[in-house]
Amino acid sequence: MADTDWPGCGKSLKGVILDMCGVLYDSGEGGGVAIPGSIEAVKKLKASDLQLRFCTNETQLNREAFVDKLKRLGFDISVSEVFSPAPAAVAVLKERGFRPHLLVYDGLLPEFDSVDKTNPNCVVIGDAAEKFTYQNLNEAFRVLIGLEKPVLFSLGGGRYYKEGDGLALDVGAYMKALEYACDLKAEVVGKPSPTFFQSVLNDMGLQPHEALMIGDDLVNDVGGAQNCGMKGVQVRTGKYRPSDERHSTVTADGTVDDLAQAVDMILKQRH
Amino acid sequence: MADTDWPGCGKSLKGVILDMCGVLYDSGEGGGVAIPGSIEAVKKLKASDLQLRFCTNETQLNREAFVDKLKRLGFDISVSEVFSPAPAAVAVLKERGFRPHLLVYDGLLPEFDSVDKTNPNCVVIGDAAEKFTYQNLNEAFRVLIGLEKPVLFSLGGGRYYKEGDGLALDVGAYMKALEYACDLKAEVVGKPSPTFFQSVLNDMGLQPHEALMIGDDLVNDVGGAQNCGMKGVQVRTGKYRPSDERHSTVTADGTVDDLAQAVDMILKQRH
Repeated sequence: MADTDWPGCGKSLKGVILDMCGVLYDSGEGGGVAIPGSIEAVKKLKASDLQLRFCTNETQLNREAFVDKLKRLGFDISVSEVFSPAPAAVAVLKERGFRPHLLVYDGLLPEFDSVDKTNPNCVVIGDAAEKFTYQNLNEAFRVLIGLEKPVLFSLGGGRYYKEGDGLALDVGAYMKALEYACDLKAEVVGKPSPTFFQSVLNDMGLQPHEALMIGDDLVNDVGGAQNCGMKGVQVRTGKYRPSDERHSTVTADGTVDDLAQAVDMILKQRH
Repeated sequence: MADTDWPGCGKSLKGVILDMCGVLYDSGEGGGVAIPGSIEAVKKLKASDLQLRFCTNETQLNREAFVDKLKRLGFDISVSEVFSPAPAAVAVLKERGFRPHLLVYDGLLPEFDSVDKTNPNCVVIGDAAEKFTYQNLNEAFRVLIGLEKPVLFSLGGGRYYKEGDGLALDVGAYMKALEYACDLKAEVVGKPSPTFFQSVLNDMGLQPHEALMIGDDLVNDVGGAQNCGMKGVQVRTGKYRPSDERHSTVTADGTVDDLAQAVDMILKQRH
């Protein structure tokens, strides 16, 4: 590969943020499978002097269940290292007095246990997957269109992801459907929202130029991180497609075959 | 009502184009119900010296079955007077050598009997209603994303419509979902496509300024007709909402309570 001189991977680098699905593992039946070399790569990062956080738009499980799943796959990860949209959304809802109608996956519902959901004055959608039925979408639409000032929160804005047998539409597609039907603009909580990336940087106590994001999603991971002043590297696993390398608006600071290669290059350049 | 001086409703008017759902009838169980006064209003137009055509984005039934439904509701309408997206799409597909993957309502399938659907090189979506399942949307998405140059045709671009118990998402919302996921722009066949309106004008042998469109959809009926140089009037039935009367980009040439009132005003101004 040609990207031997990644900017931002030298001495100034102090922290790495990893996307999870498509970088650590591929989703699918039975919790998915680890991507070869990624378990070892996480170990190497943890053994280095770099800080490490995980940043996911996963919204099918609450964080506890999600981290348990990754542990079963062999990863050394704890809940406090993982940043996901649902807890961020709960904070926003409470702060601004919103009572959500939820269109999310069943596994995510516990995250919203502490939120008042009576007489909804907004809608929150996540990657509801097979719960994105015609009926459920109409129901969410009717709540929105019935509000004086419709407000839609979307847990992430992804276009699609790899799911076992192929690609599947992600929450961003359904967000666009509701935006168009209701003539509104959704508020994205999660990647690529700058607020979301900033909360991870704050947790590490780092400036944007001291951190590197590694993801398989060119627009949401790489582009989102770059918009915050971080460097962004894309892996050729997960939802990566060759056309990403000639995208019209986003150019990764580096492109590598997988996380294992990325980590080897980062650590090699630091010595 | 205040719109006593509709532009374009004087002597120069030679033809009227009527939207159907929400103007003639409200959809719902058992084929829906005629909107009060609309059967008589169609009769009056037919008895006048004005030409009359019907222009619908209905894509749940083929034209024969759709016209039969309206006849059962009491309307004097024939198939040759009705313009709908499916036949227009079939013409485009054949002309340009496209073999569609169809995501349409079962009742519409007969319209595509003559079209080669093997080894699809495009996707056609209509208002598939409860066939807009998570599985079917993913299937259409996978066909598109697997094409070297993805092409999506949408039978209409409506946001939502009134369905018995409430509002339901229309094909335009699902079109936006696929557009976003595949990073493409769909080709809309049907209202508000200028090509579609022009085909109706051609059939009447009229210039745009000689024709008036009456619909319940501000953007697709009224705005679409205005973009072609016609006048557009909105009725306060069907999917009409009070906020339409202060829309940011489309202003109807007139707004009336229903078709009966529109026809009475048109005919009165001609005498």
